Amino acid sequence: VIDPERGKKYLVNGRLETDKGIVPTDKLGRVYVRGKKYIVLDPWFVDFWDAKKRGPQAMLKKDIGLIIAYTGVGPGWRVAELGCGSGSLLLYLANLVRPSGKVYAYDKNELYLNIARQNICQARLEEFVEFKQRDLYEQDIDEAGLDLVVLDLPEPWRVVPRLRNKLKQGAFLVAFVLHMEKLRKLHDCLLEHGFDDIQMLECIERKIIVTNNGTRPEISGILHTGYVVISRLVEP
Amino acid sequence: VIDPERGKKYLVNGRLETDKGIVPTDKLGRVYVRGKKYIVLDPWFVDFWDAKKRGPQAMLKKDIGLIIAYTGVGPGWRVAELGCGSGSLLLYLANLVRPSGKVYAYDKNELYLNIARQNICQARLEEFVEFKQRDLYEQDIDEAGLDLVVLDLPEPWRVVPRLRNKLKQGAFLVAFVLHMEKLRKLHDCLLEHGFDDIQMLECIERKIIVTNNGTRPEISGILHTGYVVISRLVEP
Amino acid sequence: VIDPERGKKYLVNGRLETDKGIVPTDKLGRVYVRGKKYIVLDPWFVDFWDAKKRGPQAMLKKDIGLIIAYTGVGPGWRVAELGCGSGSLLLYLANLVRPSGKVYAYDKNELYLNIARQNICQARLEEFVEFKQRDLYEQDIDEAGLDLVVLDLPEPWRVVPRLRNKLKQGAFLVAFVLHMEKLRKLHDCLLEHGFDDIQMLECIERKIIVTNNGTRPEISGILHTGYVVISRLVEP
Amino acid sequence: VIDPERGKKYLVNGRLETDKGIVPTDKLGRVYVRGKKYIVLDPWFVDFWDAKKRGPQAMLKKDIGLIIAYTGVGPGWRVAELGCGSGSLLLYLANLVRPSGKVYAYDKNELYLNIARQNICQARLEEFVEFKQRDLYEQDIDEAGLDLVVLDLPEPWRVVPRLRNKLKQGAFLVAFVLHMEKLRKLHDCLLEHGFDDIQMLECIERKIIVTNNGTRPEISGILHTGYVVISRLVEP
Repeated sequence: VIDPERGKKYLVNGRLETDKGIVPTDKLGRVYVRGKKYIVLDPWFVDFWDAKKRGPQAMLKKDIGLIIAYTGVGPGWRVAELGCGSGSLLLYLANLVRPSGKVYAYDKNELYLNIARQNICQARLEEFVEFKQRDLYEQDIDEAGLDLVVLDLPEPWRVVPRLRNKLKQGAFLVAFVLHMEKLRKLHDCLLEHGFDDIQMLECIERKIIVTNNGTRPEISGILHTGYVVISRLVEP
Repeated sequence: VIDPERGKKYLVNGRLETDKGIVPTDKLGRVYVRGKKYIVLDPWFVDFWDAKKRGPQAMLKKDIGLIIAYTGVGPGWRVAELGCGSGSLLLYLANLVRPSGKVYAYDKNELYLNIARQNICQARLEEFVEFKQRDLYEQDIDEAGLDLVVLDLPEPWRVVPRLRNKLKQGAFLVAFVLHMEKLRKLHDCLLEHGFDDIQMLECIERKIIVTNNGTRPEISGILHTGYVVISRLVEP
Repeated sequence: VIDPERGKKYLVNGRLETDKGIVPTDKLGRVYVRGKKYIVLDPWFVDFWDAKKRGPQAMLKKDIGLIIAYTGVGPGWRVAELGCGSGSLLLYLANLVRPSGKVYAYDKNELYLNIARQNICQARLEEFVEFKQRDLYEQDIDEAGLDLVVLDLPEPWRVVPRLRNKLKQGAFLVAFVLHMEKLRKLHDCLLEHGFDDIQMLECIERKIIVTNNGTRPEISGILHTGYVVISRLVEP
Repeated sequence: VIDPERGKKYLVNGRLETDKGIVPTDKLGRVYVRGKKYIVLDPWFVDFWDAKKRGPQAMLKKDIGLIIAYTGVGPGWRVAELGCGSGSLLLYLANLVRPSGKVYAYDKNELYLNIARQNICQARLEEFVEFKQRDLYEQDIDEAGLDLVVLDLPEPWRVVPRLRNKLKQGAFLVAFVLHMEKLRKLHDCLLEHGFDDIQMLECIERKIIVTNNGTRPEISGILHTGYVVISRLVEP
């Protein structure tokens, strides 16, 4: 059930109770409850994503889109996500590597891993994900010959040197970085450890709103989330 | 072969001739020709994309990323692209719907279709695409029960009414729109013909550059490409 | 008194009462109340502006800065503001045309005019402003030979034709426009009535925050306020 | 003479020779030369600014507007600009402090100072500016009790400590900073030396274009110039 006015989605079995009253879900399409519009649909992938349980700061669609578009991740890829959190990006990766690929989801925090596991199960993608609790600053990952490694860790340069022999030649290392000062540090670390063709990106997304008075960008919203750093393993 | 300084890529069989001299490609990794760095790699999907033949204005990775992230397009989807041009988005769609999905690529312009076909063949994705030359303002598409239809046409509202019975319930209709005035027109047209949950987005991407003097966003570049409009078929 | 943590300013005579306790103002500089920092200063112009009474949607500094920079408004100019609201831009104009210029502040709404008048008096600029209540869609302004006219009205094209003989040749007509569709309508109306050299601008401002973890743009905030349209009277 | 199509301005005495032919300037208003539109006007302040001689990277109107709006600089202010370059900001400051204020323009580079002096003379503002050649990392400025000091130097933190006794309490110190890493360094230096209420800003400006096909932001242009840092002397 989508509440388009508030931009909210609810996964329900049966009916949805709201402050306007009960929204029946036996018939798909638009439903009006006391004059307010709801949209009832069978859930698609993005609906599972929008209704997922939240843990820490989750990556937004705009940044996930950049990662997918700049790496070309797709069916059959073997991917490791280091710092998967509650699984925001993980859901997309698991969805895209189907049916023959696999995502190895690492996080130090068991609580987050549990949330991520629930979200993956709800979207029926558990077949494509392996979860592992690990302190990545201390211990290596188990896999090698990977197509993509994603780092969502506060200090990615502590992990980069130990990833050199975990990726195929030409494979992608992506980091999501929150602070400006970290960009150069990561940049230099990547160059030093066999990675190159580095692209550091930032993306400002604005929603456009249609009102009775006219069309305009939304007035307030998210101005910044983080920087997406893309690189390739050039010298394994 | 990647020229990281200029941000250019070349698909070569054998060696690459540049103004600096010949870049040998028999050994993968970094190669220096008269002090200038080149990166030699076997081609991955994004390398085919970056080296593709250009026709008309091609969609950029940032907008392609938005479309992928907001629709959740993935393996097995059946997609139609109306106005595929030289195949910028088409390459990504074909790559993502593998191995069981299909993309139906329509364009009025035979020249563009030929470029798109060459690009798809070069990336070895021809198995997943069907090309059809057609004037979409005049004629319908052949498929039905689609998961996603993408419109990259100057007047998308001329096609929307005839798409209502071509999509599954809950499926996505996406349009790439260049001009502000067209947003409201398309918005109202979508609501009228069974589509809803409309999101209209714009994305400003900036590359961050690391120089000897410091880190900063690039000074000049692309400020705007177009608006991405996402909607769902709610009432078929 | 400035509360830098919250980004708030208070104009006080004597002491300021806060939820942390009383902030004494007899000594200028930094004052700590229960560990929280306050800054006590004699008020400057921007302090009066920041502490002004609000009426309707007020123009932000970023847009005011664009208007000042693109017109070059300065000492001695004679300016009319049509739709001055609570006086956000008006305060700046009055401050800048001193000592020999004048601002004629028009608004239909008496309530807003009163707030604007209070704000102007508080900043001690009443000598440079003349307030007039008027329905600008129906009635002309009184002045002629102006250097600058600013329109902050929902339908600026209803006023443009009657301004042609109110400005010097080469003088500036500026409009603040909220909606995309209105830009073309205003653009064509300006060209038709003797105005030209039209520049339509939008400005996205981001604050950069220094935290213990690092430096970054602020996460959420204002994404859009409106469009600033600058033009010159070319053929009076 | 304004060439609106190219966004160029020419200061001419008599006629302007272009590739389209000669543009006569004896009559003000629109002039068509072989079908191309030119606009002939007596020069206003922004026309002098637009036609100024360029030296090094010059500050743009958007950033100048931010500085003016966030400081409230106006008639009567005494201002020092350290690193005035070819005088881009200086022209605005000189124009705004009239008739009783003064701008002290410092630069190490004599070539730039000469360009700045020519630009100031052309705009007839020489009465309000005093030029001084000086290495500001080594030597102090001469003035005290200033209302505003602007730093456009690569390492502003080398000058900040020696400015504490040059400004009035509550007065403004502004720095224009090009690189991300410098923001924190400057921020901490300011707090240490009596400055506070620090605001660090970035501004992305987009021009909106009206074409026959529709209205849209311009496709490519300036994405980034620098960061504007505003602070107040709180403890002299």
